[in-house]
Amino acid sequence: MGEGLRYRDAGVDRAAAERAKGRIGQLVASTATEGVLSAVGGFGGLFRVPGDLSSPVLVASADGVGTKLKVAMRAGRHDTVGQDLVNHCVDDILVEGARPLFFLDYIGMGALEEGVVGELVEGLARGCRENGCALLGGETAEMPGFYRPGEYDLAGFVVGAVEEDGRPGPSRVRAGDVLLGVASAGFHTNGYSLLRKLLFERLGLDLGDPFPGHGDPVGEVLLRVHRSYLAAVHPLIAAGRVRALAHITGGGIPGNLDRSIPASLQAAVDRSTWRPPAEFLGVMEAGGIDDDEMFRTFNMGVGLILVVDPDEVDRAGDALRGAGEDAWVLGAVQNRPDGGEAVVLR
Amino acid sequence: MGEGLRYRDAGVDRAAAERAKGRIGQLVASTATEGVLSAVGGFGGLFRVPGDLSSPVLVASADGVGTKLKVAMRAGRHDTVGQDLVNHCVDDILVEGARPLFFLDYIGMGALEEGVVGELVEGLARGCRENGCALLGGETAEMPGFYRPGEYDLAGFVVGAVEEDGRPGPSRVRAGDVLLGVASAGFHTNGYSLLRKLLFERLGLDLGDPFPGHGDPVGEVLLRVHRSYLAAVHPLIAAGRVRALAHITGGGIPGNLDRSIPASLQAAVDRSTWRPPAEFLGVMEAGGIDDDEMFRTFNMGVGLILVVDPDEVDRAGDALRGAGEDAWVLGAVQNRPDGGEAVVLR
Repeated sequence: MGEGLRYRDAGVDRAAAERAKGRIGQLVASTATEGVLSAVGGFGGLFRVPGDLSSPVLVASADGVGTKLKVAMRAGRHDTVGQDLVNHCVDDILVEGARPLFFLDYIGMGALEEGVVGELVEGLARGCRENGCALLGGETAEMPGFYRPGEYDLAGFVVGAVEEDGRPGPSRVRAGDVLLGVASAGFHTNGYSLLRKLLFERLGLDLGDPFPGHGDPVGEVLLRVHRSYLAAVHPLIAAGRVRALAHITGGGIPGNLDRSIPASLQAAVDRSTWRPPAEFLGVMEAGGIDDDEMFRTFNMGVGLILVVDPDEVDRAGDALRGAGEDAWVLGAVQNRPDGGEAVVLR
Repeated sequence: MGEGLRYRDAGVDRAAAERAKGRIGQLVASTATEGVLSAVGGFGGLFRVPGDLSSPVLVASADGVGTKLKVAMRAGRHDTVGQDLVNHCVDDILVEGARPLFFLDYIGMGALEEGVVGELVEGLARGCRENGCALLGGETAEMPGFYRPGEYDLAGFVVGAVEEDGRPGPSRVRAGDVLLGVASAGFHTNGYSLLRKLLFERLGLDLGDPFPGHGDPVGEVLLRVHRSYLAAVHPLIAAGRVRALAHITGGGIPGNLDRSIPASLQAAVDRSTWRPPAEFLGVMEAGGIDDDEMFRTFNMGVGLILVVDPDEVDRAGDALRGAGEDAWVLGAVQNRPDGGEAVVLR
């Protein structure tokens, strides 16, 4: 049968897959929480609906890491993008008031590289542990001919829970409410196609070169991990002190804060209340990028915005700062003029 | 600002993304079920935990379509792989006894092609409607430089629910139980790297050529949709008539049925009880593939295996056939000899 075709000839190595599964199993086990009912390797992951909610609503979100992955590949460092992905997903459902229950991942790569998969899952597991969320399952797909050697794609899915009543959202927002900005850790996971084009192609920089307008190396600035706001913000939500939230991702402040503002109101963001961190200003100058494009592509230093009752602002700000976040009054909610935008920056 | 860099220059087209979102929104709305609480476009999808289970357990699974996608791309037909993905995910959690609640997708592509995304989501929405499952969210990521023009990856994630007590599983399986095989619709979503290598590279066939050992065109045989067993099998599970199940995917019968058999027992599969469909025999002969490799790569015509009490076999078989499935007694469960395998095929 020397001429016979085996699955391995077609680029799929089952033994390597089995070895990778062993390491993944240990990492997955490190994230187990009390809701987890299943062991690794079943057809599906099992999770008991938490009993502490009287009318539980599940909140789910799917995301990818985007082209930040290319930076990780260029740096040969694969243990941070998993954290980026978990934190991004966790922040997305936090906006609905949910705390995460479990997370599943999808990794697609051309040929299974055990070391890379191990590092990716290490980052995912670390992100899950830090957010008290179980890594309940996942799929690592070997796709010969889809991805270039050494490349991969990574997607994630999170499911969280929130009490049906009292969820934050646009319907709770009133004129006079205050916008509290919470600082990002940098670019998080948005704008990386533009960043790579500018830094690597146009400016010809490499990972070790200083970032424009900033002393730190390009690779370090670009790989900074997307911040999870769960620990600092969920207690405020659970205590009913947050009316609505916006996670500032692709589309920037105007493209995300609008989803938290009802049609009759307008969020007025006062740009004089903060100075965008040096890396944003450096990119703006080096790329000759106009202001509007910057604010619609990047978070500009604002990772999350909370809409709060004016009477709650001081307490909420103190709580955020006490939890290690940099938070400040970023603007206010007002009546929307006829034909006005949901978000204005001035 | 003619020299200024815009996000679109970096390969990301926000206007096209907005247009695609409109079509996706309509398709998503077509899948809404009574549990859905959220509208399209929020940060997370919201779903009310069903009230008809006294102790609900969530069952989640993540999957990709694998290299079957390359066949879809070659055929320029993108509206079936979404169904494949939904049905695969639904069958995975059906093995745990769960019915699906909601599904989320991830599509990664180099440049957003509205037509392709529309067809993909059409298939996902059709799959969701057929399984009574809401398409609750998803992410379409534009990843310049990751995927070749016209190519994409597609991953999915399903969450279902099952009553905590009375779930099927290995612990309920007894010696003397009967294995009921349920026919697959063809290759489903496994073995496609090998199939493509054999059919397109080694044999030089094209999509319109007759499939080896089979009269139908190669493209048609390869794109047949992964079968969902939910409608036929869930009523049997809910009535407590199924002790365990195995979804026959990558790894074939030996690599999947083993997960449903406890350590003390052995599943003896009698190969004389069915003849693998012509496409499997054609591949085996044309590729000179040995028997063991065939059974570990392909489902060989068996999409799902139910383990049932011998007293229930006739009723279960009748119910499956009554629901339009081709089902037969495939073997039995017996005590496992020392050092014996979980699954033997003879």
